[in-house]
Amino acid sequence: MNFTFSSFADGLKSSAVREILKLTQGNAVISLAGGLPAEEHFPLAAVREAFERVFASGGKSSLQYGLTEGYTPLREAICARMAKKGVNVKPENMLITTGSQQAIYLLTRVYMSVGDVVLVENPTYLAALQIFQASGVRVVGVEADEHGMRMDDLEAKLKQYRPKMVYVTPTFANPTGKVWSVERRKQLLALCKPNHVLILEDDPYGEIQFDRNAKYPSIFSLDEHPEGSAVLYTSTFSKTVVPALRTGWIIGDTRVITQMTKAKQAVDLHSSTLDQQALYQLLTHFDLDAHIQNIRDEYRRRMELMKSLLQDARFSDLRWNEPQGGMFFWVELPESIDASELLKRAVEKGVAFVPGVDFYAENPRFNTMRLNFTHTDNDSMKLGLDRLADALDAYKHNV
Amino acid sequence: MNFTFSSFADGLKSSAVREILKLTQGNAVISLAGGLPAEEHFPLAAVREAFERVFASGGKSSLQYGLTEGYTPLREAICARMAKKGVNVKPENMLITTGSQQAIYLLTRVYMSVGDVVLVENPTYLAALQIFQASGVRVVGVEADEHGMRMDDLEAKLKQYRPKMVYVTPTFANPTGKVWSVERRKQLLALCKPNHVLILEDDPYGEIQFDRNAKYPSIFSLDEHPEGSAVLYTSTFSKTVVPALRTGWIIGDTRVITQMTKAKQAVDLHSSTLDQQALYQLLTHFDLDAHIQNIRDEYRRRMELMKSLLQDARFSDLRWNEPQGGMFFWVELPESIDASELLKRAVEKGVAFVPGVDFYAENPRFNTMRLNFTHTDNDSMKLGLDRLADALDAYKHNV
Repeated sequence: MNFTFSSFADGLKSSAVREILKLTQGNAVISLAGGLPAEEHFPLAAVREAFERVFASGGKSSLQYGLTEGYTPLREAICARMAKKGVNVKPENMLITTGSQQAIYLLTRVYMSVGDVVLVENPTYLAALQIFQASGVRVVGVEADEHGMRMDDLEAKLKQYRPKMVYVTPTFANPTGKVWSVERRKQLLALCKPNHVLILEDDPYGEIQFDRNAKYPSIFSLDEHPEGSAVLYTSTFSKTVVPALRTGWIIGDTRVITQMTKAKQAVDLHSSTLDQQALYQLLTHFDLDAHIQNIRDEYRRRMELMKSLLQDARFSDLRWNEPQGGMFFWVELPESIDASELLKRAVEKGVAFVPGVDFYAENPRFNTMRLNFTHTDNDSMKLGLDRLADALDAYKHNV
Repeated sequence: MNFTFSSFADGLKSSAVREILKLTQGNAVISLAGGLPAEEHFPLAAVREAFERVFASGGKSSLQYGLTEGYTPLREAICARMAKKGVNVKPENMLITTGSQQAIYLLTRVYMSVGDVVLVENPTYLAALQIFQASGVRVVGVEADEHGMRMDDLEAKLKQYRPKMVYVTPTFANPTGKVWSVERRKQLLALCKPNHVLILEDDPYGEIQFDRNAKYPSIFSLDEHPEGSAVLYTSTFSKTVVPALRTGWIIGDTRVITQMTKAKQAVDLHSSTLDQQALYQLLTHFDLDAHIQNIRDEYRRRMELMKSLLQDARFSDLRWNEPQGGMFFWVELPESIDASELLKRAVEKGVAFVPGVDFYAENPRFNTMRLNFTHTDNDSMKLGLDRLADALDAYKHNV
């Protein structure tokens, strides 16, 4: 039997993160590679109780098929949470998805055709790049500085490429950890909207902010909304509650949400309704904001530890910025070092990270890497960075 | 803000079932429309206990991200169940999906390109038609008799259209309830495989058989397998355990499963791991086969009731076959009756069904309808069929 696959299949690369995770599974490698939250801080008791409430209150009805749009009380509860952030939306502006990954996929499926152009930060989230590239969408990177995309380059590329969409993660970007200034957020809107260029604002990490007083208004909140907004905003409970529930959401103009809902109906009918009902119970009976504040404090401590370790003399030729939130350090190695080659040495020494190359839409910089600081405990992090320093030494002396 | 959508979005029709379900929600309409299992027979206690076991045994680790392929112990447990049906597969031949709906979508995404041809039974499952049509795949119906597709027509259409795939539901098809003979299953294989035409065998209802002794070997089991098989086989726990868990699976040659897994990684990373872990616990600690036998007996009783109601003199001009399993009666009305028009009268009278027209890939027969017998209790079914008879009378006297 011969099999011949579609261009979508041919366009899918297996992700580097995934291959590395396979390498490191079941052995003594300390992984700074994944984007995993800290298990020891998962609210197990609250999740357990939430499921118990679902079974006790919903009974057998809780086990039936549900709406493609998502469980209505959950959508209402998310609307209420969004309202506290200056965003006014109704359940009909929202689709519940299997993680925000599915929101990115579905929007791409209903909005982008082969040959359409999407502008992205460069580097950006690699699984979004995968979706765009496999879908036959042309991905063009926009130059950036520490405040976000550079508006002169964006303006030039809007004219040159006539994109249909701009994809951004303006708050604690993956992989760079960058936060866009409010000014840049407004400028992005001002440039895109008159040209009817859709903005996909991906915000998985926005709640993981280390400065209690800082405000990072979403681009969605800065536009007229929900109807008439140029922005589709997606987020997830994977980082704030637990990943296993696989529950994300996307909000925007109902014309777009309706198309995405029809697509989701064809793709998988609906996401797990037990998970959605449990999340609703959890949002109702558990102080999620206090829990998030605990996570922020814990992740800030871990970030501070990694920062102090990176300040060691053995890393003196590395460059990085201190993240203000999220889960990652983005590190620039000396020009002579190829991070993918370094990774092989690192895995031999017993530590893993993600080379930066796969995060680039174009013009990759091979001397970059992403280090996760949320998943390892203090001892493992110290040992991991020690091993990384050993790997750097080994690399330098053999090349 | 102007939005312009992709051809995929433009190709998606909202399903008739869905629109009808909206019409009937929250009021006194008796729905024979959906494909819903009977809630009163859901194994709530077992599901509840299964989740409790997950939390107790897995602890916080049960809440972390999981593998795209699916929870390995669940895949092993499904392999063991499949082995009892003469199918030998390993976990690497299997992808866990969000219902079998997602399996159909993912296979289409990785295997079919715009303009490729899929052959289908006519009529067939409307949500599969939706996927094919929105994806730009050309759908061609094959003539059928009571034993399955007619092989002369299949042979002619294989030559004429050079399809990449044939989609079939050979056991208790939706909507027709038909069972293919073993001979036809073998002939389908014999015709497709030498031409490298993939067979997608969709089997959501196979376990709901009314004759305890009957054997319905899957087409997958009749081919060499798993490697080298021309067949991808998909099924689900939605009908045998509960729909809310949204857990289906697809098995086949690893070359295809690998491509689908990469696609799933891009589409939603993975399905709910809590649901998968709970299903594994349920398969381990609950007698699912005994439960399935109870469901079979109950659904057979409901089918017998609907059969006796359809034998009423008021329905004497309807034609139908007694289903040997599954969830539906497929009913042919007199040629003069348009089932979509009849539905409007029926909803006025307080009963709903699905007109057959949307199940046809081509040459729709407007005088057909699908009646579900699994979701309504005895009293509602009697009242529903009574209202249907009233609607028929009203239709006949006004047209």
